[in-house]
This record gives sequence, structure tokens and C-alpha cells, in this order.
Amino acid sequence: MNIAETHLPNWLQRSADNTPHKIAVSTPEISWSFTELNQQAMQLARQLATLGVRPGSRVALLASNGLPFVVCVHALMRLGAILVPLNVRLTLEEQIWLLRDVEALALVSDLHYQARATELQRALPSLLEATLLLDTTKRQVTLQDISPDAQTRLIDEIDLEAVQSIMYTSGTTGTPKGVIITYKMQWWNALGSALNLGHHPEDDCWLLCMPLFHIGGLSILLKNVIYGIRIIVYEKFDAPLVNQAIQSQGVTIISVVAVMLQRMLADLDSRQQQYPSTLRCVLLGGGPAPRPLLEACAQRHVPVVQTYGLTESCSQAVTLAPGDALRKLGSAGRPLLPVQLRIMAEDVVAQPQQPGVICLKGPSITAGYDHRPDATAATITDGWLATGDIGYVDEEGYLYVLDRRNDLIISGGENIYPAEIEAILLAHPEVEEAGVCGQADAQWGQVPIAFVHLHTGSSLSPETLQAYITPGLARYKLPRAIYIVDHLPRNSSGKLLRRELPALLDRERLK
Amino acid sequence: MNIAETHLPNWLQRSADNTPHKIAVSTPEISWSFTELNQQAMQLARQLATLGVRPGSRVALLASNGLPFVVCVHALMRLGAILVPLNVRLTLEEQIWLLRDVEALALVSDLHYQARATELQRALPSLLEATLLLDTTKRQVTLQDISPDAQTRLIDEIDLEAVQSIMYTSGTTGTPKGVIITYKMQWWNALGSALNLGHHPEDDCWLLCMPLFHIGGLSILLKNVIYGIRIIVYEKFDAPLVNQAIQSQGVTIISVVAVMLQRMLADLDSRQQQYPSTLRCVLLGGGPAPRPLLEACAQRHVPVVQTYGLTESCSQAVTLAPGDALRKLGSAGRPLLPVQLRIMAEDVVAQPQQPGVICLKGPSITAGYDHRPDATAATITDGWLATGDIGYVDEEGYLYVLDRRNDLIISGGENIYPAEIEAILLAHPEVEEAGVCGQADAQWGQVPIAFVHLHTGSSLSPETLQAYITPGLARYKLPRAIYIVDHLPRNSSGKLLRRELPALLDRERLK
Repeated sequence: MNIAETHLPNWLQRSADNTPHKIAVSTPEISWSFTELNQQAMQLARQLATLGVRPGSRVALLASNGLPFVVCVHALMRLGAILVPLNVRLTLEEQIWLLRDVEALALVSDLHYQARATELQRALPSLLEATLLLDTTKRQVTLQDISPDAQTRLIDEIDLEAVQSIMYTSGTTGTPKGVIITYKMQWWNALGSALNLGHHPEDDCWLLCMPLFHIGGLSILLKNVIYGIRIIVYEKFDAPLVNQAIQSQGVTIISVVAVMLQRMLADLDSRQQQYPSTLRCVLLGGGPAPRPLLEACAQRHVPVVQTYGLTESCSQAVTLAPGDALRKLGSAGRPLLPVQLRIMAEDVVAQPQQPGVICLKGPSITAGYDHRPDATAATITDGWLATGDIGYVDEEGYLYVLDRRNDLIISGGENIYPAEIEAILLAHPEVEEAGVCGQADAQWGQVPIAFVHLHTGSSLSPETLQAYITPGLARYKLPRAIYIVDHLPRNSSGKLLRRELPALLDRERLK
Repeated sequence: MNIAETHLPNWLQRSADNTPHKIAVSTPEISWSFTELNQQAMQLARQLATLGVRPGSRVALLASNGLPFVVCVHALMRLGAILVPLNVRLTLEEQIWLLRDVEALALVSDLHYQARATELQRALPSLLEATLLLDTTKRQVTLQDISPDAQTRLIDEIDLEAVQSIMYTSGTTGTPKGVIITYKMQWWNALGSALNLGHHPEDDCWLLCMPLFHIGGLSILLKNVIYGIRIIVYEKFDAPLVNQAIQSQGVTIISVVAVMLQRMLADLDSRQQQYPSTLRCVLLGGGPAPRPLLEACAQRHVPVVQTYGLTESCSQAVTLAPGDALRKLGSAGRPLLPVQLRIMAEDVVAQPQQPGVICLKGPSITAGYDHRPDATAATITDGWLATGDIGYVDEEGYLYVLDRRNDLIISGGENIYPAEIEAILLAHPEVEEAGVCGQADAQWGQVPIAFVHLHTGSSLSPETLQAYITPGLARYKLPRAIYIVDHLPRNSSGKLLRRELPALLDRERLK
């Protein structure tokens, strides 16, 4: 018997069969039952087939959080096509690079990103392109000007080994790589999460205000149909709106990053409210949480569940159970059931309390990167994924994350890789050395700042350099400040010591 | 990537790591935490290794419901050995046949069945044999007079493709066959059930009063450690004891067959009590439920969840959601998420309302029978298991079971196959024809009765024949009555029409 033989009924179809009239997805404009969502997905699949999408086609999706995005994800499943969600915050150049790298057949956008999609198609003329339209009156999501192909054979089963999506992450090297996400990973992630957080099929409602183009958001669309529970999707995070939904719409679970939770608490306090007992889980990811925030949540009886995960682990891999929130303050918790965790220090499994590289193994962990055998081999050994993040486990096996991989900067839940910004800075002919690190920021957690050493004789100004790098970097990646310095801290072998960069700031200030 | 690569951490170990002090198993004598259960399983594994048990060894277990049984199941997992649970109600002859058929290496029994184990070992001298002892003072389960082998390498991971157990069922032919149950089947069954019934990790407590040697009981031992929830194990079903546990010990789920539920309701009514709201699910299996029972449950707000399953589907395959209990009275519900269901009538998928053979497919369904390629091929086609049971689905896909396979008789939750009893009757030299069918019984649901036609000139009495068959048949299989008749009803091609046998009774009574 072979794993290729593990087929499941299409999850959305099954939820529509089980609970046809139950609300599947609510947005501020419209709510759809599982039957409606299923019908729309099948209809859109037939339009995508007309566009030219076939089993195995790579289809980039450039859309904001909303029904068009949700329907497109399920439509691609029905065709056996591969979803490539684009980070809407990337620049045109970054998106072009990515579409080329993934060899996308088609690009689907929503109205909001139609202009950008046109630009992308102009740069990549062979790219098929179409626009998703939401008609709230007809309660439909359709592809503009494309009729459905009634002959298309839709896929009723899900092959767990098939690729569901390719999600780009810059990882340790600074060059974005496409993480292969299979249905199997989504399934095991959903089940591992349910075993840990519990599953209340009749009551659960997951509020989704994280970007759907990241794994933390996308994986909730899969949980939606695997669990058969309702989700509420917001285009953007808005603290008062989210708090209102928690108060009055029966939200039981919400996924957030620290900056969101801080704003939710501020808004809650400003109204002198508490959360109702229906809210059973506030899943807090996207980097280590500030201790004062966790204490503020404890005071207000907010059921915070800290979690650690990455794109390669299909979101959550390690999660702190609510009962341990205070006893293990600051810990990301214990691995979900399908996941094994170990810390490697100098190629040896570390002792408790000894820091090392966090490694993960299990069926929810990726098997590798798309057409990057070297990166795959460098990251995965015998099924163990070396995350590059540094942490330790205590005597009870609880994970404490010390540093995200290679000086990763996490800004409002977005990962920023210093090496990527440094590469762009170094592309300027007058820059000799560049170093980027994070700076604490009350609003975003961290923001990137840059230090550059110029070639002798150069009088390049920070402003000119900033203008030079702007087209090539998404706005959230742009350094808040660029400092021209005499030298950058390096170790004896010449390796940049990014952690020592902040000390340069003090010297700058003394000047 | 291959399914053989799907390894999970040992489930019991993981539960012990996650919740070391949480109660895992309660029995009337003793309660064990997950840590204790895990330690005892590892210790017993080392003793079983001394006995000679190796990875892949087939180990028969002859024990009543209790801690020795539970620990043995987990100990075998740690060795990669295969569990073969023996139905304790079988006769010596039946058990000998089965041990030979499965080529058991070892037989492990508890004190209660030690004498029988000795008899079996005498009949099969090459069988390794040992007795499980429960010491409530030391809180230990050990193998009598066997020291642990400290060198044994215990297995930390579970290979989902590995065989967990071989469970005998007579199936359609009357000859018992060993159903291969893998860890994968147990895992998917547990997850499918949790997705349907919900999963409340902190509160759930499953009461187990079904025999552990049947899949309905055994699968709860696996759910115990996969979910990390508490179970309460009773040696026998006892309505007042069960009701007391529901009232005062936080039982949230209980698995029962109709005869048990009837007694529970009678006991409940005699005390003028109702069940507390903590009881969230009464999982009712083991054959179609009588409508008056379901109505009595509805009146008393008992959260009955009907279910259909068989050994080959690793227990539950189709389950009625609580919300549908009244709307779909009499239905077994809809397939669990990993399961696909279809009705085949004359080799074509049946229309709604059209009866046919119930067929199941999915990762919780067996891949076949142990060393019975013919039976496997006759039962499973393209992954679809033909259960032999007859039923139909309605327009909403809800299953209604009409007849259990080939005139199966279900007596107090035990399956009785007429063909098996007929074969034993026909072994008597004076019996020419034999037919067995079920008779309604207020206590057991059904009991078997037999009709025989004797060779010309024979004056064999029913009493003599009864005495003749008694050693070869478990007590619950013995016909309540044997009738000597002139002929048996057959169709034109000579096939016995078991459904017409009851009509002979009226004729008998008229005589």
C-alpha cells in the first residue's frame, strides 16, 4: 500500500453534504452556506478551466482577504491546480521575480489588484490573466468575461500527497524560495491543532484577520472545510471591528500576532469590556510575545494560546495549552501531536535548557522547496527540518524561542530577512558593506534599520540610497533609517555580526 | 515520498509528555496517570521481550476488560508486535482453531483466564505463554515470573502502516477471518470520530463497558492516547454502576449497544433521575436500534448518536449527528470525514432510496484479511469494501441499514453468523440440512434458533444434538432451540432462504 492511495472526499463537498445550510464563511458584505461556497467553487473551477488551468497548473493569486480569495482556493482544489498566493505588499519587481521563479501559468486577481495584475501581465506576456468579481446581489464570485467550461471534470477526491500550494518565504538566505505545501500537511496541521485546542463542531467560529497569502491565514481556510466550522473573514485587521465580532458574533477562536492583540486589548479597555466566555482561544503567533502583553491578557482572563510555526510547518507546530499559559509564561509550548521537536547544538541533540537550532519533523512539515534541491538538502535531513530559529526546551519539553532564524525581523507579523535588504543595498555601486537589523517599535514590534559603509570617496546620502532601494522592496521591508558608518562589526572570519549592529546606533548618536 | 514514511511519536508517550499527571485510565480498583500507564507499558514490553516477543510477533491476548488488557495493548505497540485479542466467550476448540490460524507466537492471559490459557498451551505446545498480574498495592501490571529485559530497544515512533492488531470476525462465509487493523486505521478512525463528535481535551471522559476484544472497545483504548483523554474501564456492563459513573464521574461519552442502553434507561427511570448535561454523547452501535428505544431517549434528552460500523472499518464508519437524531430517526447517519459510502445494487451505484450492498472506502477501512487473498479479493474492489450489509441512502445521503450481512444475528452486541452454527450442526452424521436464524428477544435483541432436517430413519432428538454442538460453540452462539423439520425453505437454485425459517415456527406450533 502506498501513500498515493490515501484519498479523501473533497472537504468542502463533504461539509456541504453534512451541513448544507450552515454558514461557512461570513464577510462584512455577505455570508455563504457550505452549499453556496461549494457551488461557487465548482462554478469558478469551470471558468478557470476555460482560462486554461489544468491539473498541476500553477496559478498565482493576488487578492485581498475576501470571498474571491476563498472561492479561488477551493476552485483550484477542484481542478488539482496549485495555488501560489502572492504577498500583496511586495513591489512590482518582487512579484515579477516570483511569478517567473514559480513558472506561473496564470495570474488571478481581485478588483483591488487588477491594475497591478495588468502591469504584471505586461511584464510577463505569456501569463494568462483574469479578474475575480464579487457580485453581492447575485451572491456570486466569477471570473470577468470568462464563461464556464461545462465539460470540465471536477475532482471529487483529495489526494493527500498532491501539492495544494507553493508559498514563498525568504528563509535564511534572503532569496525567496517556494515552500511546497501538500494537502497532507494541511490535513495534519488541522488535526494536530484540533487535538490540542479541542474541536466544537457545532459552536466553533474562527475569526480570520491575518493575510490569506500567509500560511497562518491560508491554513484557516482549510480548517474551515476540514472541521466544517464557520469562519469570519475580514479584509484587514481592525481592533474595534474584531472586538465587536467577538462580543456579538460568537467567535470562539481568533488567530493574531502580538501587535493585533495589543490593539484589541487597548480597544477593549477603552470600552471597559471583557471578552465573553464564548471566546475560547486567542491563538498568538508571529514571533515571541512580549511578557507584559501576556500578563495583561492573564489579568483580563483572555485565553491566549501561544504558538510557534513557520511556512515550512504549515503554520502551528508548537503550541502552549491554555492551562499552561501562566505557568510557562514566555514558552511557545509543546509540539502538536503529529510533530516531533528537537534542539540541535553542534550536530548533537541538545540537553534541556541548552540553546540550539529548533528542528521539526512530521507529516505537517514540508518535504522541501520547489526546484531548490540544494536548499532542501541544506534544510531537511532525515525528515528533520532545521528551522534556523534558535531556542531551547525545558525539562518538561516546553519550547522557548530565543531568536528567530538568522536575525529575522518580525514587523507586525510580517517576516523580514536582513539578508534580502542587504542584497538590495549592496547592489548600489557606492555601497561597500551593508548590515540590517531590527529595532524595537511600539506599534509593529520591530522595524528594520540599515547600516552601510560606503566606498572610499563616496558621498552618497541616506536619502538618495533610500530612494534607490524603494522600488525593489515592499514598503514594510524598507529600513526606517539608513546610517552611514565607518565599518560594520564582523567576527574573525569576516561574518557580519548583525546582533552587534544596534550598538553602532549609540555611537552614531554620540557623534 | 512514501506512506511508509509517515511516523508519529508514540501516542501514549506523547500524552504522558503533554499531561503527565492527568488520569489516563480509571477502573474500580485503581486509576493511573498517563505517566504511570506509559511506565507500566514500557516495563511490560521489556518482560514480553524476555518471553520472546519481537517486532512482528503475533501475540494473542485472553483477558477480561481491565488494566492488564490495557497495558498489554500499549506494551505490544512499544515492541512493534501484533495484538490478537481473543473473544473470551469462544470455546476451547474455537480458540485453538484461531490461535493456529493466526500462527500466534505467544498467548498472554490475565488471572481470570489463566486456566483456559494453560489448556490452550497444552493443545498447542509451541505456544509461548504467560500470565498478567495486577498488583493494586504496587500499582503494577507484570508478567508472572518473568523479569524484564533491560536491553530491549523500545519503539518511540508509530509507523502508521504497521499492523496494530488482527481481529477475527466470521464475516459472510461463517469461517472466521483475521481482519488486518493498522495504526493508520486506528488513527483515521479516531480523527474521523473527533471531527464528527467534537473533541474537548480538558473535559472528555469516555466510559468503556464493551468487550475490549471487539473493535468497538479496542478502538477506545487508542482514542484514549491519541486524544489524551481519560477513560473509565469496567470489566462488565452493569447498568447501575454505569449510571452512577455518568452521574458523578464526569463521563462525557459512552459507547453502548441497544440492550445496554435499554437497561440504563430502566435503571435511570427506577431512580427517577435524568442524565447530567456533562454526558454529551451516547454512541449507539451494534446493529439497528429499535425505534421505541430512540424515542424513549429523545423524551429523556439522552444525546444518542447512532453509528454503523464493523471490524473491517475499525469501528465507527457512519454516524448520526446528535442534531439529526429525531429528524432522521432510524438512520445510522452520514459517513465520517475519512470514509466514503456508496450503495451497490447489481454492480451499479444505487439511487437514493434504492437498497443494495453497503460499501465503504477510506483510510480507516481495512486493506484486507490476514493470509486470505481470496476473501480479500472477494470483499474489496478498488479500495471499496463490500460489507455485505444491506441498506440505502436517502436524498441527503443518510444511511439506513436494512439487514446486517447475510442474515447476521446480533445478540447483545455479539455478532452471530448462521453459517457458522449450521456448519457445526451439519457435522453431525444424522443431520441432512440445517438452517439458523435470529429470533427476537426482549433481553438480547436477538437469539439464534436452529432448524434441522434429519436423514431418513434418524430419530436424533434436539437435546442430543444440542449436547453434540455445545463444545464447539461459544455459549452466546448456541441455538436457544433446535427444531426438527421435514424440509427447509430453499429457492429454485437450492439456496437456503434463512428469512423464511421463522415461518416454520408457526407450523411447528400448529403441530
